[in-house]
Amino acid sequence: MSKKVLVLPGDYIGPEIMAEAVKVLNTVDARFGLGLELEYGLLGGAAIDETGVPLPDATLERAREVDAILLGAVGGPKWDNVERHLRPERGLLGIRSQLGLFANLRPAILYPQLADASSLKPEIVSGLDILIVRELTGGIYFGEPRGIRELENGEREGYNTYKYSESEIRRIGRQAFEAARKRGKKLCSVDKANVLEATVLWREIMDELAPEYPDVELSHMYVDNAAMQLVMRPKQFDVVVTGNMFGDILSDTAAMLTGSIGMLPSASLDKDGRGMYEPCHGSAPDIAGEGKANPLATILSAAMMLRYTLGSAEAADAIEAAVSKVLDAGLRTPDIHSEGTHLVGTVEMGEAVVTAL
Amino acid sequence: MSKKVLVLPGDYIGPEIMAEAVKVLNTVDARFGLGLELEYGLLGGAAIDETGVPLPDATLERAREVDAILLGAVGGPKWDNVERHLRPERGLLGIRSQLGLFANLRPAILYPQLADASSLKPEIVSGLDILIVRELTGGIYFGEPRGIRELENGEREGYNTYKYSESEIRRIGRQAFEAARKRGKKLCSVDKANVLEATVLWREIMDELAPEYPDVELSHMYVDNAAMQLVMRPKQFDVVVTGNMFGDILSDTAAMLTGSIGMLPSASLDKDGRGMYEPCHGSAPDIAGEGKANPLATILSAAMMLRYTLGSAEAADAIEAAVSKVLDAGLRTPDIHSEGTHLVGTVEMGEAVVTAL
Ligand SMILES: CC(C)[C@H](C(=O)O)[C@@H](O)C(=O)O
Ligand SMILES: CC(C)[C@H](C(=O)O)[C@@H](O)C(=O)O
Repeated sequence: MSKKVLVLPGDYIGPEIMAEAVKVLNTVDARFGLGLELEYGLLGGAAIDETGVPLPDATLERAREVDAILLGAVGGPKWDNVERHLRPERGLLGIRSQLGLFANLRPAILYPQLADASSLKPEIVSGLDILIVRELTGGIYFGEPRGIRELENGEREGYNTYKYSESEIRRIGRQAFEAARKRGKKLCSVDKANVLEATVLWREIMDELAPEYPDVELSHMYVDNAAMQLVMRPKQFDVVVTGNMFGDILSDTAAMLTGSIGMLPSASLDKDGRGMYEPCHGSAPDIAGEGKANPLATILSAAMMLRYTLGSAEAADAIEAAVSKVLDAGLRTPDIHSEGTHLVGTVEMGEAVVTAL
Repeated sequence: MSKKVLVLPGDYIGPEIMAEAVKVLNTVDARFGLGLELEYGLLGGAAIDETGVPLPDATLERAREVDAILLGAVGGPKWDNVERHLRPERGLLGIRSQLGLFANLRPAILYPQLADASSLKPEIVSGLDILIVRELTGGIYFGEPRGIRELENGEREGYNTYKYSESEIRRIGRQAFEAARKRGKKLCSVDKANVLEATVLWREIMDELAPEYPDVELSHMYVDNAAMQLVMRPKQFDVVVTGNMFGDILSDTAAMLTGSIGMLPSASLDKDGRGMYEPCHGSAPDIAGEGKANPLATILSAAMMLRYTLGSAEAADAIEAAVSKVLDAGLRTPDIHSEGTHLVGTVEMGEAVVTAL
């Protein structure tokens, strides 16, 4: 039985890092007989350039058909002057929403080989392993009404709507409890229930779910405190669940604690566990075309895809082991380079992983 | 000419730290002949206990009359079961809004004597001096409509409205540009203009103001990136300006970079520079009544009040120098204690500052 993967390289460094991930996928495909069928599609700026829109119908159609999606990175200054609703980011938000990819899983793991890369003291971050579960298809990102309107006094006002329904909260809550159950059994729900009604309901529903997961310890934290605690004592966290906007901020904070965002994969899943996988980092316009980008986050996203959606844990394990091996061997792209290690480019890094496989 | 100060001790550690700040104020009053007249009022939980509401009319009336307000900290678990609109936080939000205290200035400064307290590596944070300018009376904190409603399908939905008008953005923008002009001349405006229309207008107005401040270098950053950059390379920032919600998160992140939030004051100013001053930290219910709380943030808030609203820079300088002196002498409350320094309590710390004056 073949497994179809839609590959969306995206913009700037996107195609460069994706090329390496594809080599890795082809290698495990051959080795483990996975029957992967890769096809390519357009999303973001690349799609704007070819078709005029950031999420072409053809991409959406294929995305609905395939078993999983692997995305590079989208966006960048080239499309800054494109009309707002046609920007590359709209393609990303559109595909998340259209496919119902409501559960965004963002691990923040400190690789022991890269402990130095963190801006935090080693004793604060060594062994760090947090999973941020971010709601991805609701909240203020998608709430209506929204826009810029003229007020009675003639001045303009920009406005957005932050909202969450019980069922939206419940389904992301369950995902997070399930994830916590498989890990350290601690779940911290982050809200701003002392100010925002939208998050009062959030807190209530999380409390309502808790008795179904008696093995998981649920706590609540205000978002401002969570941001502080992540910096001060990040290892207190196991799984963190929060809404779309707070999740955007906290997952990037958590990723940066590791000092190596170029290493972190992410998954965006629908209710059946189908999903889109992508690195946590962006399209890095400043280094595009220079062959310097770190392909490991994309390669590890491919591993995550094999594990969670394609049911090939063995292949995922093999990729992760290969990545560890090249790190052990001292290979480093510029973003994670430090004294005494061996500086390599995108292609060299990708090929080293293939060789290690 | 006398200067009236309304003192609002607030809850839990609030009265303990305020008692020390009052001693310090009385000392500089006598030494510099400031003619301070202190009066006391109720806000938050303390007000709920006495009057049933978190912001009594009497407090609001006096707050409008006086020259400046000094606040301890409000809130805590004692009032968790009070009805939502009567919670202590409502008193704080109410006084900010009623007095038009739209400009919240939150410095994040690393005291060289406390460099060890940070969870970040010394080279990342040494010499850190950031000012976060947070809009405080608008945005999603106050936007209507808001609440929890029943949807047609019978489930509930929590909702809030994020909005900013041109004039709201313009006045906080000017404050931030002015502040940057007096400091390192760099202003970073933080938004999420790639997703939220409310912040598209924000970015536009900041750009519109820039030509009036040609000596200030304006940049823009998305909030998720700003959170990362604060952790990775905080010294790139001078002044940061942002809305109420993002400011809540980023100012706490910035404060925590210093490792000593117990040292950081804040000011909330109206259009005429009148204002309310308070420590950045909360009411610390866990250590209340134990005489362990750090009074320095409140003492430094009093200094900020003297400088910005009461026009006594000399007295402010004297207080700040006295605080530096007690730190040099090795005195530390538990929150900033490290090996080789002298552990003291709230009162001892307050009195040491008085002696140093
Ligand atoms: C590009 C942007 C719209 C996106 C988001 O805010 O969700 C990105 O920051 C992310 O976290 O995937
Ligand atoms: C207590 C709370 C309402 C308040 C806020 O969110 O503004 C606090 O976190 C602050 O930053 O002063």
